[in-house]
Amino acid sequence: MMHQIEVRTRSHDQLVDITDRIQALVSQSGLQAGLCHLFVPHTTAGLTLNENWDPAVRHDLLTALARLVPWDDDYQHGEGNSAAHVKASLVGFAHTLPVEDGRLILGSWQGIYLAEFDGPRRRRVSVTIVGE
Amino acid sequence: MMHQIEVRTRSHDQLVDITDRIQALVSQSGLQAGLCHLFVPHTTAGLTLNENWDPAVRHDLLTALARLVPWDDDYQHGEGNSAAHVKASLVGFAHTLPVEDGRLILGSWQGIYLAEFDGPRRRRVSVTIVGE
Amino acid sequence: MMHQIEVRTRSHDQLVDITDRIQALVSQSGLQAGLCHLFVPHTTAGLTLNENWDPAVRHDLLTALARLVPWDDDYQHGEGNSAAHVKASLVGFAHTLPVEDGRLILGSWQGIYLAEFDGPRRRRVSVTIVGE
Repeated sequence: MMHQIEVRTRSHDQLVDITDRIQALVSQSGLQAGLCHLFVPHTTAGLTLNENWDPAVRHDLLTALARLVPWDDDYQHGEGNSAAHVKASLVGFAHTLPVEDGRLILGSWQGIYLAEFDGPRRRRVSVTIVGE
Repeated sequence: MMHQIEVRTRSHDQLVDITDRIQALVSQSGLQAGLCHLFVPHTTAGLTLNENWDPAVRHDLLTALARLVPWDDDYQHGEGNSAAHVKASLVGFAHTLPVEDGRLILGSWQGIYLAEFDGPRRRRVSVTIVGE
Repeated sequence: MMHQIEVRTRSHDQLVDITDRIQALVSQSGLQAGLCHLFVPHTTAGLTLNENWDPAVRHDLLTALARLVPWDDDYQHGEGNSAAHVKASLVGFAHTLPVEDGRLILGSWQGIYLAEFDGPRRRRVSVTIVGE
């Protein structure tokens, strides 16, 4: 079963917590055990997991990425958003998560984030659920 | 079903578009809905997705990675290609993509790339297709 | 089938080879062909593959990551381990590997590593095996 959710981002760089929406899809699917695959069909946004407790972790992650891949640099790409493409390739565009007893298996402090690197935009996440 | 494709790289650092070859395998398999898993059994090459329209994006991605992980640095590995190992760990060695109606679900501008970091070489990509 | 293994890390930054333990689970499962999904339910440790022959590759990978994401920097997160969160997002928290003829398909020099970035600690890896 494949589903799609839409995510509205509000800043240029933002980590949007989508954990509850993904868990809701898993619950609706009736899947008891298997895998839940997430995929972002974009090239300037990615997907990552990280701590969902202290928002400073998200801030520090975005800041560290901005320092590693400065927005203004010696890029050739005419649209001027090469840094967003690079950051998305660094964190990745897909994630697969295990499901057991109808629930995503995540660490206590782990949240799922859409990583916006060239917002604000309307983004999509494809969710594929496989198993029993 | 597992398949393997061979990719000939021509430069030291190169992003080789393999999207059409992967889509062809998906079509041949008859898979209507499920997942297509790609895996690179190498340690100095990886896999990533990114924009397939403006080739400058690929150039900028390789340049940004080269700046982050300089080829010549204070490395201990005797073969001298540590930077390639690091870059491959940063972009990753595997990718899973959703399939619906017999086609890979990719964004309009998204291509699948073998990321060569120590070429030119002959590389392999394992393709595993699961679903109905 | 989902399994869990525990990994004891011994240093602050460490790449612990877990290949043999994962292969043992695949063998016990009786799976002949399919996928083996690994997941780290932590936010300051990740998972990566890399060369298992020359230990200098592991050293160089950890050193390169430490240079990219310095431990002491202008972070806001109160626990002081933001660098570990960032590094984990860079290498990733999950990996899916193909299985054929009852064995993980890995390159000759490829090992699976739990990447500890804030140890020593007791870590867990969830292993989900799907296929026939």
